[in-house]
Amino acid sequence: MKQKIKTTAVSGFPEYLPADQLLLDQLKQTIAETYRSFAFIPLDTPVLERREVLLAKAGGETEHQIYCLENNSDDLALRFDLTVPLARYISEYGGVLTFPFKRYQIAKVYRGERPQKGRYREFYQADIDIIGEGLLSLGAEAEIIKVIATVFEKLAIGPFTIKIGNRKLLSGLLASLNLSELAVEILRILDKLPKIGEHACREELEKLGLNPSAVKEILNFASLKENVLEKLELLNIKNPDFVVGLGELQELAECLADYGVAAAHYSFDLSIARGLDYYTGTVWETFLDDYPELGSICSGGRYENLVTGFNDRAFPGVGASIGLSRLFYQLKTVGLLPDLAVAAADALIISADRQRGEELADSLRRQGLNVTGAYGPEKLKKKLTLANRLSVKTVYLLGEEELDADEVSIKDMVTGSQKRQALSDFI
Amino acid sequence: MKQKIKTTAVSGFPEYLPADQLLLDQLKQTIAETYRSFAFIPLDTPVLERREVLLAKAGGETEHQIYCLENNSDDLALRFDLTVPLARYISEYGGVLTFPFKRYQIAKVYRGERPQKGRYREFYQADIDIIGEGLLSLGAEAEIIKVIATVFEKLAIGPFTIKIGNRKLLSGLLASLNLSELAVEILRILDKLPKIGEHACREELEKLGLNPSAVKEILNFASLKENVLEKLELLNIKNPDFVVGLGELQELAECLADYGVAAAHYSFDLSIARGLDYYTGTVWETFLDDYPELGSICSGGRYENLVTGFNDRAFPGVGASIGLSRLFYQLKTVGLLPDLAVAAADALIISADRQRGEELADSLRRQGLNVTGAYGPEKLKKKLTLANRLSVKTVYLLGEEELDADEVSIKDMVTGSQKRQALSDFI
Repeated sequence: MKQKIKTTAVSGFPEYLPADQLLLDQLKQTIAETYRSFAFIPLDTPVLERREVLLAKAGGETEHQIYCLENNSDDLALRFDLTVPLARYISEYGGVLTFPFKRYQIAKVYRGERPQKGRYREFYQADIDIIGEGLLSLGAEAEIIKVIATVFEKLAIGPFTIKIGNRKLLSGLLASLNLSELAVEILRILDKLPKIGEHACREELEKLGLNPSAVKEILNFASLKENVLEKLELLNIKNPDFVVGLGELQELAECLADYGVAAAHYSFDLSIARGLDYYTGTVWETFLDDYPELGSICSGGRYENLVTGFNDRAFPGVGASIGLSRLFYQLKTVGLLPDLAVAAADALIISADRQRGEELADSLRRQGLNVTGAYGPEKLKKKLTLANRLSVKTVYLLGEEELDADEVSIKDMVTGSQKRQALSDFI
Repeated sequence: MKQKIKTTAVSGFPEYLPADQLLLDQLKQTIAETYRSFAFIPLDTPVLERREVLLAKAGGETEHQIYCLENNSDDLALRFDLTVPLARYISEYGGVLTFPFKRYQIAKVYRGERPQKGRYREFYQADIDIIGEGLLSLGAEAEIIKVIATVFEKLAIGPFTIKIGNRKLLSGLLASLNLSELAVEILRILDKLPKIGEHACREELEKLGLNPSAVKEILNFASLKENVLEKLELLNIKNPDFVVGLGELQELAECLADYGVAAAHYSFDLSIARGLDYYTGTVWETFLDDYPELGSICSGGRYENLVTGFNDRAFPGVGASIGLSRLFYQLKTVGLLPDLAVAAADALIISADRQRGEELADSLRRQGLNVTGAYGPEKLKKKLTLANRLSVKTVYLLGEEELDADEVSIKDMVTGSQKRQALSDFI
């Protein structure tokens, strides 16, 4: 006999047992339903893209993490995010789409990086974007931030803060300090501010060769926390980028209030710079107030040049992305997602008569419940064990006695209490 | 400037404009909700599997259609169906799963075949299976057939028939005719019976070298239509496989009645043989009564040897698969899926005041509607055009006049009628 084939999960490619799978699925559904409720439509692009499409937009490490197919005349590769496919889609169909184009996509992406805890090679992203044609108002930022706040409210994983910055403010400040040429390096250091703290940041900035007064000004700027808009005005910086960025932040503040985003859910924080190069204005990161160590659980912002490289037209966009697989791992790890939270079945029917059992099951299904039946010859005890293993809350018993009386015994599996009811109440 | 990058869809990898995407998504959701209502859980295995896992179960053409990754130390490839990953999953986690294990998976699979109309390289399958441990009763067949019938009832695409056969009957008959060695070829010919007709089938069977009386017996058997169970008994065939198969079909008939599957939705049809080798007993195909030319839209059956090759334990299964991408294409082609059937948004709010517009939008979202707002400076006419392009049925107008009166104008976009209502009815 030949050697056994390896059936373990491949490292970096998560798969789950039913209890976790149900929980992850519920997370996905809550996110999708929230996105839908704001009338975003579910775009679903192929998992495979032409390699040249992906390479046109890949930067830094990503380029080396692309999984390519072998011996393929179309030179296909697996997408590493959902933004590049969106850019290609907009570039291709922009002429026939209705703008603003509001889409979401909750799907798997692929990166051939070394797997670590909570970092996968195949993982879900839950992206939402609004794409404009020519122009897109700051209402788009407010809407996306509102959607994200609604998602995290519904997920009920505790208080969170969406920390909002603007890259124009930062680049304007750096220009006013004659440091534009070091902008990329400085942004990268500031991005680490919440993690490594002000002291370490100062050292790294000084290592870049910045003089102490510039470092002080940058760190002061990045550390502004309350009344940020007023304090920014007081800085009295005349650089045009800075002025535009401040205007955007002021307008966004008005928009967020108008859109009814609760003030507790967001703050302005100028240290937020985002690593990715394609953001051009507003940027944000989202943190759980009680678990800052998890890092950002949802980032996003505005990108004016979505289709550059594919198309010469202007399609400005605002979007956000939840790294769903990673978030799921993190929430499980810190205990924010209880075990067995989602039942495989709402109800189990145990019936000595298959036909009447299924009639009852169907009536419960029509009420929207997920129902399974156990009509085999196994003992009652074994069937109740099944109910517990499926996290079923209610068991409906149709024994000979109940059937003779046209009744059903209803057992609450949480409290253990049991009552009798007429079958005619259901069927 | 460098050459423009090709952004068209890759041949065989379907992607859709919003109207079709919404429709396809609704199909997927209807199927998923129906599967869930019978307490099947949503398994989600990785898109990539080890090549050896796929090759262990690939047969015929499939083996040459597997997409493999290049330069990959894990030797990964894209799954070509959802059954092989299920087999691997059961083999790996069988020791900790609860049986019967009821799972569904609606996901993309990959086959590097030449794309044709409605035949894709990346396509959705919507699979549902019940896996037992050691033994699995014929109730599993009845349950899966009931789920499939419920799906097609809910999709409301017209009358359909699930044609049910049993491979043991066929192989028993062939054994009784001393034709077991030609079974594969004969099954392949019989599979074509509905398409090519009896006359062509007879010719092909005779070409195999069968004598006329055997051909007659086989075709007579495969053509049995009404009172099939009685007619099978009258054949009085003593072959043990045949006897077991007949017993299974009789028991299944009882099960289907008990499970409440409407008699109009299924029939016994012994020409149903299914090409795939892994079926061992019950097999079925599903046809739209008014569109037989579409061929089978859902096939399934029982396989006793799911994990063979991975594991020595017995995990019998019963499953069905809907080729969703192909079905979607077919239903669109014959006009069974109306254009613009699913709205991108249920309601559009046009408001001169963004804040009160969003308050109204939120109140409608809480009622479960998908709502979008248009608060920009564009003219009313342009916004109503947007409503039409999104297939919105109701537009809520909050002009200066309405806002002053604390009212809202509600415009029915289908009839064109308009009425005023107090805003306090909503907010």
